[in-house]
Amino acid sequence: MVLYIIGLGLSDEKDITVKGLEAVKSCSRIYLEAYTSILGVGKERLEAFYERPVIIADRDMVETESDAILQDADKVNVAFLVVGDPFGATTHTDLVLRAQERGIPTVPIHNASVMNAVGCCGLSLYQYGQTVSIVFFTETWRPDSFVEKIGANRQMGLHTLCLLDIKVKEQSIENLARGRKIYEPPRYMSIPTAITQLLSVTTDAYSPTTIAVGLARLGSATQQIVAGTLEELQSVDFGPPLHSLVICGKMHFLEADVVRGFAVSKETFDRYAEVSEH
Amino acid sequence: MVLYIIGLGLSDEKDITVKGLEAVKSCSRIYLEAYTSILGVGKERLEAFYERPVIIADRDMVETESDAILQDADKVNVAFLVVGDPFGATTHTDLVLRAQERGIPTVPIHNASVMNAVGCCGLSLYQYGQTVSIVFFTETWRPDSFVEKIGANRQMGLHTLCLLDIKVKEQSIENLARGRKIYEPPRYMSIPTAITQLLSVTTDAYSPTTIAVGLARLGSATQQIVAGTLEELQSVDFGPPLHSLVICGKMHFLEADVVRGFAVSKETFDRYAEVSEH
Repeated sequence: MVLYIIGLGLSDEKDITVKGLEAVKSCSRIYLEAYTSILGVGKERLEAFYERPVIIADRDMVETESDAILQDADKVNVAFLVVGDPFGATTHTDLVLRAQERGIPTVPIHNASVMNAVGCCGLSLYQYGQTVSIVFFTETWRPDSFVEKIGANRQMGLHTLCLLDIKVKEQSIENLARGRKIYEPPRYMSIPTAITQLLSVTTDAYSPTTIAVGLARLGSATQQIVAGTLEELQSVDFGPPLHSLVICGKMHFLEADVVRGFAVSKETFDRYAEVSEH
Repeated sequence: MVLYIIGLGLSDEKDITVKGLEAVKSCSRIYLEAYTSILGVGKERLEAFYERPVIIADRDMVETESDAILQDADKVNVAFLVVGDPFGATTHTDLVLRAQERGIPTVPIHNASVMNAVGCCGLSLYQYGQTVSIVFFTETWRPDSFVEKIGANRQMGLHTLCLLDIKVKEQSIENLARGRKIYEPPRYMSIPTAITQLLSVTTDAYSPTTIAVGLARLGSATQQIVAGTLEELQSVDFGPPLHSLVICGKMHFLEADVVRGFAVSKETFDRYAEVSEH
């Protein structure tokens, strides 16, 4: 039959498409990928809405037990649910390739992802450069390739979408070393933490007065969008996850009009925003 | 009440989200924006599915008659349907701002757009630079700002999503000059036409042997994805619209694995693809 890879969109059980819901209802087994992103609701809400059980698929299961996921998928339909769009994270490519090896057709069902929904802050999607990831720094590991990319984008006047790290079902180094399957509580990087990391790197790609836009719980009823300098946003309470951050490049005045509406302070916005008149 | 701006997704009436469908059903008037993109189905299919009439909103109506669209929106719900995601095209920002001026809350309902659905060709969404538009050249107007942007992207090893022009309800220069509201038949740029325009510009940003991916009717049952050199794709028949094109930058070998599966010829793909091993 078919392996459906179904995007759930951004926020709750009703962000699935009608096509996606029909597909889910045709499936014998339903997996929810729960390690690259999260919805604003738990799996119980999904189960109630689908009237079917949902199996949480963590990274371990997807990467090492794909046989179990694909089992009998030549005889029954299987759904693999992904927050956002099916192709937002590359980790699912592997599952698709394995299905293809077994001659199981895969059908993706698209949905919104942060990559397009971020358009709601007023910055044109045509004016973004490369998207970057910001991962949690540790004492010994501070990967900062985002700096160079933000710099290249800003030099061309482009905005940068920063996706912030999430850590789900991670083991501490000690537990990992001892082979103990004890997991740390999930961690979701907040906008202030991301900014602290950004500002901890010495660079001229941006500064504490660079204008940025913080977005929390995009697409939900409690969505929060706040614009301001990095410094200003560092002390905004954005509430529960997920958070994303856009570092602004040069704004067209029509973009600036919308972003200004989200500003912590219109005064600092007007002082520091780089706005072009054409 | 509320002005809903509802993304319809990419292909047919069932790509709307459950949330979007519920919103549509609560509305007294439903407009379909029909000039920046098209679905694969006509408005009759939407009307049958919604069990409600749908009013086609052309550019003229949205830009000059927004009062009519917003009429009574303080008393009843109004839906403004947009192909893809509500924020894919900036043209709707104006409608949102006008609604806000009148104190009418606007609620966007997100959906897939080509900007994230393009992930299905196997190229990572994190490895795209700025998106470009390719508009129909005329004898006297050949805007080619895409060249510089593709060049900048490729220099950084990044892929470029090229969105191809659509012309709906355009007037000929003569009819425009004479004020005659006679409209030309709609035109949708095909991938071969886009490539002809790309190759008509003298540049070293790309060449006839640059690897690219053509995508037609993304997200539909007749979706077509073909990879090859620009020259090869120029003679592929991609069928009915909409078409999009990705000019590849440097591919990670896992990206190349997937793209190669779509290649016109694996031999030319292997000869010309720029692939990195890490």
